[in-house]
Parts: sequence; structure tokens; C-alpha cells
Amino acid sequence: MEACGLIVEYNPLHNGHVYHIQQAQKLTGSDCTIAVMSGNFTQRGEPAIMDKFSRTKAALSAGVDLVVELPFLFAVQHADLFAKGAVSILEALKVEHLVFGSENGSIASFHQALKEREKNQSAFETVLKQQLENGFSYPEANRAAYELAGINSTLDLSSPNNILGFAYLRAAKALDSPIKVDTIRRIQAGYHEQSITGPIASATSIRSAWQDEKSREVKAAVPEKTFELLGTEELHSWESYFPLLRYLILTRPAEALHQIHGMDEGLEYRFKKYINQSLNFQQFLSLIKTKRYTWTRLQRVCVHLLSNTQKHLIHEYLGAAVPYIRILGMTKNGQAFLSSRKKQLDIPLYTQLKDGMHPVADIELQATDAYYSILPPEVAAASRRQEISPPIFV
Amino acid sequence: MEACGLIVEYNPLHNGHVYHIQQAQKLTGSDCTIAVMSGNFTQRGEPAIMDKFSRTKAALSAGVDLVVELPFLFAVQHADLFAKGAVSILEALKVEHLVFGSENGSIASFHQALKEREKNQSAFETVLKQQLENGFSYPEANRAAYELAGINSTLDLSSPNNILGFAYLRAAKALDSPIKVDTIRRIQAGYHEQSITGPIASATSIRSAWQDEKSREVKAAVPEKTFELLGTEELHSWESYFPLLRYLILTRPAEALHQIHGMDEGLEYRFKKYINQSLNFQQFLSLIKTKRYTWTRLQRVCVHLLSNTQKHLIHEYLGAAVPYIRILGMTKNGQAFLSSRKKQLDIPLYTQLKDGMHPVADIELQATDAYYSILPPEVAAASRRQEISPPIFV
Repeated sequence: MEACGLIVEYNPLHNGHVYHIQQAQKLTGSDCTIAVMSGNFTQRGEPAIMDKFSRTKAALSAGVDLVVELPFLFAVQHADLFAKGAVSILEALKVEHLVFGSENGSIASFHQALKEREKNQSAFETVLKQQLENGFSYPEANRAAYELAGINSTLDLSSPNNILGFAYLRAAKALDSPIKVDTIRRIQAGYHEQSITGPIASATSIRSAWQDEKSREVKAAVPEKTFELLGTEELHSWESYFPLLRYLILTRPAEALHQIHGMDEGLEYRFKKYINQSLNFQQFLSLIKTKRYTWTRLQRVCVHLLSNTQKHLIHEYLGAAVPYIRILGMTKNGQAFLSSRKKQLDIPLYTQLKDGMHPVADIELQATDAYYSILPPEVAAASRRQEISPPIFV
Repeated sequence: MEACGLIVEYNPLHNGHVYHIQQAQKLTGSDCTIAVMSGNFTQRGEPAIMDKFSRTKAALSAGVDLVVELPFLFAVQHADLFAKGAVSILEALKVEHLVFGSENGSIASFHQALKEREKNQSAFETVLKQQLENGFSYPEANRAAYELAGINSTLDLSSPNNILGFAYLRAAKALDSPIKVDTIRRIQAGYHEQSITGPIASATSIRSAWQDEKSREVKAAVPEKTFELLGTEELHSWESYFPLLRYLILTRPAEALHQIHGMDEGLEYRFKKYINQSLNFQQFLSLIKTKRYTWTRLQRVCVHLLSNTQKHLIHEYLGAAVPYIRILGMTKNGQAFLSSRKKQLDIPLYTQLKDGMHPVADIELQATDAYYSILPPEVAAASRRQEISPPIFV
């Protein structure tokens, strides 16, 4: 068996994702597709619209054979850490291929950019550091560093998809992995596109159309399974968590907020200063935003506050590789793949979590509890039980 | 001017309280009535049905001239600490009288009990310690100690009103205060009585009747002002805080829960063990209750968890006297009293709070934020502004 890995969020799974799954299979000729998926919170620091179990069901029904969880600790991080976590899981599973979506679909341009980056590494680092010190945000400093360090490449490193793809390639290189990395061109719809214009639309535009009750537009852009789940599952968005976030900011002293991952450079005082003027999440983020902090970075800090992700946990466990492989769901084919690789695995394979299993699993459950906390206690308790139950099998 | 102090909660203010105010004035011949009132959380560990400002309005309209706050740190504590805080405020204000309600209305029986208690102090302490070690709750151990230490008194020290009255007398003695302590007999209605049977009813029965929408019964048992406030103010009960409490218990590790005041003897593990089986606050408390922990004590721990009251704060500030006098509301007469005593005050007089004013005021604001956190952000923010505004003046 030969397997192809995808790194995904499926928030929610749409027609563009189905196209990616099919093209990746075609391109690599693999007979098993594996998705490493972030859990209840996404890389950009948002509660996923549906929980990981619903999104796993959507993935399995769209042609994925095995859904593996990217642990919360690695998922809600900037591109490099997110990539390192996800690629190390595919590497641990001895997956042969990794295929990501990009704007131009040319893996050569990524290799070229990587070569240029390595060649100019020290100039790159100098400029990056300088720009950060000048108060620019990380993405802006990064972009400037590519330009000013004389990195000559045709790759557009301002597109989120390209940034992530480039991070995957670098992570595979850093791990000295034999995994073959390739890319396919994404069709239509930009990452940030705000409205649905056809059968291929961005996840952002689909979430916003669903919120605006434009269900006919959504129906045209997602597989039937996703549409069904959107109608039956509890949906989550930042606004529902705002009262909880507000409570935490007001009732924890600044020193306690400072213990939260990402709460640096006095950000805790900024949180406290503006929370009483904010009537909702959007307004709060607009008030605390500055040149230095991107919206995404601030959202991630809010996720870490909500999930009580303390700095010391990050220091202890984020530096190391992902400590286990956790299966969220599989088909018969996915199960056969797992059986074939079982003996080659260097890290434990978990099919369900337990309290006290591993600190990384503990923070996973803690984030899950935070995620479900906006639901009535009986629904929250039932939803949480999925974490400690066997994986979804179709 | 001669002033009479009352120690109250007014949760909500009812006809029995009005009777107490009038009788205290009559008994002492004072020309100013001062109520030291607990704030947004009560001594027995419950969110007050209405906030401190509404309850202040009710008090002023019922004949009280000055409402002073018993700070949160002292209010949500067992009887002795509650009494010590409240009496030390009356003492600081140089109030001449203190009148409390009791079952028999005989101050002689309280003095007699106090004398007996002092005479048998060491036997009392030995039995108390023994009973606590045997796993009995504090009230039970206390009752047993009175019996077994051979304290010969006609005073029934199992009634909550008598327990509190006795604690006031002891606190005044400990402070070596010249304050004249007296008592009047409460009329009808036991403290814990569950239903309204006439114009004098317990606060417990009034809260429960209001919840059951028996507004005609409530109307008969409270002054017009209270009835009006019940209809217009946001009302609070433990059940509304349960999702928040649940969130905190699930997302804080046991070691963090252990930092909360009252979270002793591994109680934090008990909280964690039973929270996922509990669908509401009543059920949760029933599950965690044991012989050792009274319902009241557990409720207080829940208040401290909700308000994030850490053990170190308690250690630093609860041992000392109340550090300031904080005015919640006054009449012209109350204002005249304050002017007459201003120069004799040994501690500062605050008419409004400010962030960073004093650690005891900071935890007051923190508890206020927790109290209002169940309201929509705009209502919560507006309600909170009352804390930093001048007192109510009628």
C-alpha cells in the first residue's frame, strides 16, 4: 500500500477540498489517503464551525481513508509549528506522499524558494529580526525579509496557502524525511474570499454565507454530507465565546493572564484595558489590534486563554515531536493501512483519549471542554464523551 | 446623634426586616440606622438575588439611613469571620448600638452563653478539634462541643440567627468595643422556612416563591419597593452560573483549583470527579456533599472559584481588620451622621471604588465582574459602572 498525506482543517469540508483529495490520489497513484486534521480549534485561532468528529465524518465520506488528529498544542500555532507537527505525524506513519494546494501548482517554485532561502539564511534572519524590532507583525516582517534579503523567487509568499506549503516543505527537510512533497494548483476562490461565487468557494465564504442563512449558496459549494452536518450539528463561532472570554479577562489578575501562551509584551494589560469597552468579539479584537499584532495572532491568544494553555506546557512539549498518533476516524482501507504500518511506528497509536494519558492529551481534553462549554451541560458532557470513545469507522 | 447598627443581607428585604429596623430604632432610641450589608454574594455562598445597589435602594426606602458594604472578602465566610468583619466596621464608625434578631430576644441568654463558653474554653476547643478530626462538619462539631464541654446555657445554638448573634457578641468583646449589643425577638418564620404563610416570611421562602411565579404571595411579604425591584432588576441564582462553574472545573488543572480559598483536603479532585455527571448546580452539590462538608461550605467554595479568590489573598487580608469603610448609599440623615464622625475615623472612607485602590477592593471588583458575567456584555458593563460611581443618595 502506498499512502498520500494531506494536511487539512475542513472548516467545513467543501467542493475545493474534494477536488484536492481526488487530484492528490490521481497525482500520486496512492491507494490510501490520510488527512492530518486540526481539532476543535483551527490554526488561525478560531473555534471550528463543527467539532472534530463531525468534520471527520465529512472527510471520510469525501474519500479520505484515515483521519489523524493534529494535537491542539501543535494546531493553534503559527505556520512553522503547525507544519512541523503535521509533517512529523505523516513521517511517523511512514506515509509516502504529501500533497498540498498552492496558487501556482508548481513544486519547482517551492524548491527554488527553499534553495534561495537557505542560501541567504543569515541575511534573511537579520532583516526579519530588525523588522520585528521595528514593531512589524511577523507576516509583514517575514515578507520584508524575503524581499530585502535578495531572495530571488517566483513564489508568492504572501498567500496563506503558499506560506503553509512552504512550511511543509521546510519541515520535511528539517526532519530529513523521505516523504515526497508535491503540490496541485488550487482552483478558483482565494483563501480569504468573502462570498460564494460558484461551486468552488473558500471555507471563509461558506461559513459567512451559512451565518447569513444563504443556505442555497452553501449547498452549491459543499458535498451533501457537509450540508447535512451544517443543518444538524451545533455550530460554533467566536461570538458565542465572548462572554466567557470577557469573564476570564476581568476575573484573572494580569499576572495570571501573563501565564497564558502568547500573552507577551504586556498584551495582558491591553486585554484588560479594552474588555469593558467591548460588546462583542469583533469589537474587542478591533480595539486591541495594533501594527505589531495580527488579527490571527490575537485570535490564537484568545484560544489559549479560553483553553487555559499555559506557557510552561508549551515550553515543555511544543519543542519535541508530536508524542502520539491519534486516530479520529477511518474506513476499512484506512484500517488496512494502519495494520500494515503498525509494526513500524515509533510512537504510540491512540484510538481514544483518557484523562492523565499524556500532558499533550490532557491539554487536548481541556481545549475540548472549553470548546463545548457554550453548550447546555448535558450536550457538552455527551459531546465530550466522543473524545474517550473509539474512532469513527465507516 | 446616636446610631444603631444592623448587620444584614436583605436578600431580598422583606417585612420581617422592616420590623427589625423599626424595633431596633425603638429599643435604642437612636436617630440614625446603619446597615452593614454583604455585597453581591451572601454569607451562605450564594449570588444575591439582586445586586448590592438594588438592595441598597430597598434598604434606604425601608428606613435605613446609611448602607455600608461588608467587603466580599469578609462576607462570604463562616459566621465568626463574617461577624468580625461586620462588627469591626460598626466599631470603626463609632456606632453606639448593635441590634440583631434572635429566636428568644433575650440578650441575657447570649451573655450567659458567652460566659459559659469562656469558662470552658479549653474543653470546648478539645472537643471541637476531636469532632472535626472525626470527619464532622464545622456546625456539627461546634454543636457537639457546646454539649460535651458542659456549657450550660438556655441559648439554642443550632439556629442560624442565634449563631450569628452570638458571633457578633464575641466579635465586639474581642475588639474590646464600647458598642452596646442588644437583641430583639424575630417574629414568626424560621430562617430556613420554605414557603410563605403570611406577611412575615423568610428570605428563602420569598426567593423560592418568586421563582415559582407566586408573585401575589411575595407581594404580601415584602415592602412595595422590594416588589418593584424584583420585577425590574436582573435576578440571579446559582443555576445561571453553573455552565461557568462547570467550565472552570474542567479547564483548570487540580493544582490551580487547589489555590482557591476553601479548596482543601483534596476537594478539588472531588469537584473534578463529579462535574461531568452533573447537569445542574443542585445535582452537582448533592454529588459532592459528604458528612464533612456542609452545603453552605461547598457553596462558598463555589463562590470563591467563580470569583477567583485565591488562598494567598485570604491569608494576607482576612486576618487584619476591614481596611476601609465603603458607602453604598445614604439618606440626608445618614450623610449628617457621616459628617459628624468623619474626624474620628481611623480607616479611609470610600464613596466609590477604583481599580488598584486596595487589594480588598480589587477582589471586590473581581467578584462583581463574576456576578455580572451571566448578563449580556452591555448590561454587565453598565452594571459594573455602579461600583465606580458615587453612592446612592435619597
